[in-house]
Amino acid sequence: MEGEDLVVAARADPVDLLVAGDDVTPELLAEVSTLAHAPRVIGVYRRADLPRGVRPVTLALWRVADPGNVGTLLRSAAAFGAGVALSAGCADPTGPKALRASMGALFEVPLTDFDEPAGKRVALVPSGGTPLPELQLDGDVVFVLGSERDGLPDDVLTRCEAQASIPHTGGVESLNVAMAGTIALYELNRQRDAPSKRIGPVARGR
Amino acid sequence: MEGEDLVVAARADPVDLLVAGDDVTPELLAEVSTLAHAPRVIGVYRRADLPRGVRPVTLALWRVADPGNVGTLLRSAAAFGAGVALSAGCADPTGPKALRASMGALFEVPLTDFDEPAGKRVALVPSGGTPLPELQLDGDVVFVLGSERDGLPDDVLTRCEAQASIPHTGGVESLNVAMAGTIALYELNRQRDAPSKRIGPVARGR
Repeated sequence: MEGEDLVVAARADPVDLLVAGDDVTPELLAEVSTLAHAPRVIGVYRRADLPRGVRPVTLALWRVADPGNVGTLLRSAAAFGAGVALSAGCADPTGPKALRASMGALFEVPLTDFDEPAGKRVALVPSGGTPLPELQLDGDVVFVLGSERDGLPDDVLTRCEAQASIPHTGGVESLNVAMAGTIALYELNRQRDAPSKRIGPVARGR
Repeated sequence: MEGEDLVVAARADPVDLLVAGDDVTPELLAEVSTLAHAPRVIGVYRRADLPRGVRPVTLALWRVADPGNVGTLLRSAAAFGAGVALSAGCADPTGPKALRASMGALFEVPLTDFDEPAGKRVALVPSGGTPLPELQLDGDVVFVLGSERDGLPDDVLTRCEAQASIPHTGGVESLNVAMAGTIALYELNRQRDAPSKRIGPVARGR
């Protein structure tokens, strides 16, 4: 993992830590690095040290191919306490672009396979689904997000219990998959944290 | 603008349209292109043809330096019918990375200067602000977003009427600027489109 920011952000101990001028020459770091400007520090981590498992709320990514989107969704999952499930064909979350976008969230967020998490599967579709704010998001929830180019195929959609769309005003314009997943986690968090639920009487009285 | 997808997505007529094998050789397109894989089409547009002006809802970006973030925020602004105001030091929204992230939204979203839009200025801060869902977002609203590295400086914060934070559960984890701006537009749209406001009696009865 390249750069001081990311090595500091990582919540795991590196197997090896290469510091320019200390352990290695700056020239060697530049040669190993994927960045245009060579970092001063590169940390080496073990894949086996990354968290795996299932959380009550999950973003399940179907062939999300852009590493920046996978990394951004990992960062959002970390912020909202969710897990991430990946299908075959997703960008490698340990690649340099995904790592950079995730800002170290890879060490926070348990990963699992696409079909693994139980819970209500809610497909996020660009239009035609239930408006997201009107969907009751109780219990364990798996938000299912499709690929940047093709969205979700029918056989994945039919395995979802609900389809939700994010209401927007801009005609045919759509949100990108990272923004859609982030909004879904925000909305779930908002519903569960709403003052009426915290205080209770209104919700209990019905 | 490089690539068929973007040229099709653009809502303006190109000054020039270069098609591989038709107007130009594929080799020349490859030479002009900034992409690793040369596109089949490059469209040439005039900056003067881009929309300028102010909308009732604005994302005002303070030194947002990453072109992917500027492009993503343009795309979200297009989806939610907002405008975008840019300070000095923001990434060029017409650069290739910003264009690609914006998916043609540059031709939809009026741009203006950072200080231009009137309306209630709401600074989005990582923590310590009013929880976003509890903020009343009436009238014209300008969401003010800070730079990726340093956020908003004091002299910009003091010119804002309110500070809002997005509630999240993940401890020190933060959302990136593109996600924060997108959530702010979602929340404003949700409040204005809420069933109680559409139907009316509850809101009017109070």
